[in-house]
Amino acid sequence: MTDNPLAAAMAAAASRVEDALAALLPDPAGAPAPRLAEAMRYAVLGGGKRLRPFLILEGARICGVPAGRALRSAAAVELVHCYSLVHDDLPAMDDDDLRRGRPTVHKAFDEATAILAGDALLTFAFEVLADPATHPDGAVRAALVAGLARAAGGAGMCAGQALDLAAERAEILPESALERLARLKTGALIAFSAQAGAILAADEAARAALAAYGEDIGLAFQIADDLLDVIGDAATVGKGVGRDAARGKQTLVGHRGVARARAEAAGLAESAARRLDLFGDKAEHLRRVAHFTVSRRA
Amino acid sequence: MTDNPLAAAMAAAASRVEDALAALLPDPAGAPAPRLAEAMRYAVLGGGKRLRPFLILEGARICGVPAGRALRSAAAVELVHCYSLVHDDLPAMDDDDLRRGRPTVHKAFDEATAILAGDALLTFAFEVLADPATHPDGAVRAALVAGLARAAGGAGMCAGQALDLAAERAEILPESALERLARLKTGALIAFSAQAGAILAADEAARAALAAYGEDIGLAFQIADDLLDVIGDAATVGKGVGRDAARGKQTLVGHRGVARARAEAAGLAESAARRLDLFGDKAEHLRRVAHFTVSRRA
Repeated sequence: MTDNPLAAAMAAAASRVEDALAALLPDPAGAPAPRLAEAMRYAVLGGGKRLRPFLILEGARICGVPAGRALRSAAAVELVHCYSLVHDDLPAMDDDDLRRGRPTVHKAFDEATAILAGDALLTFAFEVLADPATHPDGAVRAALVAGLARAAGGAGMCAGQALDLAAERAEILPESALERLARLKTGALIAFSAQAGAILAADEAARAALAAYGEDIGLAFQIADDLLDVIGDAATVGKGVGRDAARGKQTLVGHRGVARARAEAAGLAESAARRLDLFGDKAEHLRRVAHFTVSRRA
Repeated sequence: MTDNPLAAAMAAAASRVEDALAALLPDPAGAPAPRLAEAMRYAVLGGGKRLRPFLILEGARICGVPAGRALRSAAAVELVHCYSLVHDDLPAMDDDDLRRGRPTVHKAFDEATAILAGDALLTFAFEVLADPATHPDGAVRAALVAGLARAAGGAGMCAGQALDLAAERAEILPESALERLARLKTGALIAFSAQAGAILAADEAARAALAAYGEDIGLAFQIADDLLDVIGDAATVGKGVGRDAARGKQTLVGHRGVARARAEAAGLAESAARRLDLFGDKAEHLRRVAHFTVSRRA
């Protein structure tokens, strides 16, 4: 892995984020509801690519934010990502038993605990961002909270998941709705992650460029996810594959075909990389992330 | 009702909060996921005592916060309260079909939509608080976010609900655990509501007094809730009664008996009222709320 500079940087960042999350999350031994605290740790710790935190740490670095200052924001966004996985896996939603090769939270604990652990993780993300330790300027902290809430909420990620469930039902969705679904379900949180470093730096020009980059790779990421469901290998992906087709679920890939979807994802990666011109060589990792997003196998 | 000054003030506040919530919540016609937006409105609008918003509006008034400035904070806390009801009512949790005399969200819509609507309402509460329209000082907005998140999260309301579910299982809980449960499940959010006005005013002495008041009435409120389940009338309460006993669920009331629980709730209301001495006559409504909390029938 380490002969690839992006892989080495992502692995180093993932390790720092894992440590930060382990330190931030409540210790079951001292928590008022120990089993809930256990479920929160189970849902978050122990792996994952930590792509969103990497985007935040890299975005912060190229915006000149001091090293270490972005770590709490990176952890907060990962908490939101992990909560969304816990709730999406529930029986009433995607009904998945396996996640990252392990039993999902409602399987390892129970359904009520999974609902509450998701709720508590989402809530905790905002507690982490709002804490003065995240940034000395309250207006910056509030901007992070507002940005993350918009990306995650009823006009962002939650809307994407709602449309995703609708896509499994009988109605035929137009291609524009499927693209909106893809942009909201994964794209909104990825786009926020790309911008968060610029929010920490209070740099509006950088924020606009990173937002455009984030939207391109967010859509590319979701298309790649749908492609993995069609052509991926369960052991590598770490969760069930072929589920979309088995459920008759409509996706952009199903609509456009594998070849066209692949070409579109590759085009988005190219476009994303060009959005970073103003950052020069500093943004090399983020340009590589754009290509990684569409070439990944898991 | 209006011959009672508290009832008149609460009704007026509830009406202002209802209007604020109706204006803040997304319009399904313009929302990316219209059915989700509908479920969010259904869960929040159309009644309820709006006790928590009243505490915020009154707390703000006696701390000298300009009228109108506390309304967004009041709405945000009500969004969190309503999300908690939607999730608590789910089949995997308390499995309730009726709330405020209407079908619960998972009955009126479906389970997946109820989970997502709760998630989106919780997220939206933080978006509302973090918006500059809530308060011009970013540090105040961040303090509101942090306070609400602590009250609602894994060491607050979510922990209370987790303990509540544990109280239905076989283990015998000690009285101290049942009291902790009662304090967390309802008390934490009520205690935050009582303090929010002092946070808006950045008045630490007022915040400490209002926090102590809020903790007293929070516990009193939960004891009264458990009492209503034992001795209340379903039509007045607006939801099923006798459910705790039917499920073999342990509560403070079950543990201490009705007479002792009633006396304790009344004592907490007295204690709460005395916490407000420093505010003089201005706090008359909040003193009445303390007594209303334990004498209410629904």
